[in-house]
Amino acid sequence: MTTSVPLSRVSDEAKAALFADARTTYSFADTAVADATLTDIWELARWAPTAANLQPLRVLYVRTPQGKGRLLPHLDEGNRPKSASAPAVAILAVDNRFHEHIPHILPIRPQMKEYFADDPAQRDSITSFNGPLQAGYFILSVRACGLAAGPMAGFDAAGIDKEFFPDSDWHSVLVVNIGHPAGPPEFDRMPRLAHEDAVAWA
Amino acid sequence: MTTSVPLSRVSDEAKAALFADARTTYSFADTAVADATLTDIWELARWAPTAANLQPLRVLYVRTPQGKGRLLPHLDEGNRPKSASAPAVAILAVDNRFHEHIPHILPIRPQMKEYFADDPAQRDSITSFNGPLQAGYFILSVRACGLAAGPMAGFDAAGIDKEFFPDSDWHSVLVVNIGHPAGPPEFDRMPRLAHEDAVAWA
Repeated sequence: MTTSVPLSRVSDEAKAALFADARTTYSFADTAVADATLTDIWELARWAPTAANLQPLRVLYVRTPQGKGRLLPHLDEGNRPKSASAPAVAILAVDNRFHEHIPHILPIRPQMKEYFADDPAQRDSITSFNGPLQAGYFILSVRACGLAAGPMAGFDAAGIDKEFFPDSDWHSVLVVNIGHPAGPPEFDRMPRLAHEDAVAWA
Repeated sequence: MTTSVPLSRVSDEAKAALFADARTTYSFADTAVADATLTDIWELARWAPTAANLQPLRVLYVRTPQGKGRLLPHLDEGNRPKSASAPAVAILAVDNRFHEHIPHILPIRPQMKEYFADDPAQRDSITSFNGPLQAGYFILSVRACGLAAGPMAGFDAAGIDKEFFPDSDWHSVLVVNIGHPAGPPEFDRMPRLAHEDAVAWA
C-alpha cells in the first residue's frame, strides 16, 4: 500500500460482503466451483503477512468423489453432511518443515533455515501462531472470491494427517467447506461481544 | 452471505487493496487516525467467524503520548521507531476468561460457560487457535478501512501484560502499528511460496 492509495478502494459493499453480511454456511448448492477459482483463493490469501514471511500454511483442496470418500470418515459425524454437500473442501494444514523454503522466501536471511532446523520448539511457535493467522486470511479470501465458507474444527486431525499426509510434515488445523449457499441462513446470527467487553484505550 | 449475493461485490481493486497490493508498513506519516476509525476496524473484524462464536480476541488501542511511553520500552529495540511513528498501535490480546461471556455470545449452549471454567487446557486450545485467526481478520480489516498495518511479533509479552493488563486475564499476542504510510515501501516484496509447494489436490 502506497500513499497514493485512496481510502475508497474497498467499498462499503465489499466490506459487508467480507465481514458484516457474510455468514458461515452449513448447506451448499449443487453448483460447481472451478479449480481455477480455488487457485484464485490461494493466490490472494498468500499475499497477507506472516512472521518473517515464513508462510507455514498449506492447503489441500478435496473436490473429487474419491477425495470426499477419504475425508468424510475423519470428520465429526455432525459435520459430514456439511462437507458432503460442499463442492470443495479445503483442508488447511501447517508444514512443520516450512524452514526448508527459507532460502527462497527469506533471501535476506538464508541462515535462518539452519536455525529453525535445529529448534523444533521454535518451529512449533511459528506454526501455532501463523497457521491460524493465515487461516483467517484464507476464510476472508474465500469470501472475496465470491464464495461462502464453512470453517469447522470438529475432525480427527491425526486421522486426516495419516490419510492424506503420510509422507510429509503437514498437520491439519482447520477444515473449510467452500461453495454457494443452498439457501438463506437457517438461523439467526449469534451475537458479537459488546464493544466495551472487547476494546480498551490507552 | 445469501444466495442473492452476486460475485461482483468485492471488486478486483478491493481484492488488490486487501491482499495483492497491500504492504506491511514500517514508517508512518504524521497523519492522525480518528478513534472512530479504530472503532470501525474492530466493528468489521468482529463479524468474522470463530469456533462456537467464542471470540477470544481483545484489542487495546494505544494512541496517546502517555500510552506510547508505556508501550515502547516493552518492544524489541528495532521495533520502537516503527510504533513511535504510528498514530495508533493495537495490542491484540486473548482473554483467557472468554467463557464468562458465553451466556451472551453462545445463548444456545449457556452451559459451556461451566465446561470451560473447569478446563483451562480447553480454554488454551480455543485462545491459541482463535486468537491468531481473529488477528488475521483484524489485519485485513485495517486495510479494508483504508489504512496500512504493521504487525510485529517482536515484543516482551509478559512486560506488556504487566503494564497494561495487571488485573485481567488478557495476554498480548501481536502488536499492530496502524496509520498512513510515510512513503512508498522501502524494499521489494519478499517472495511467496510457489503454488506447487503450498497447494495440493484430491
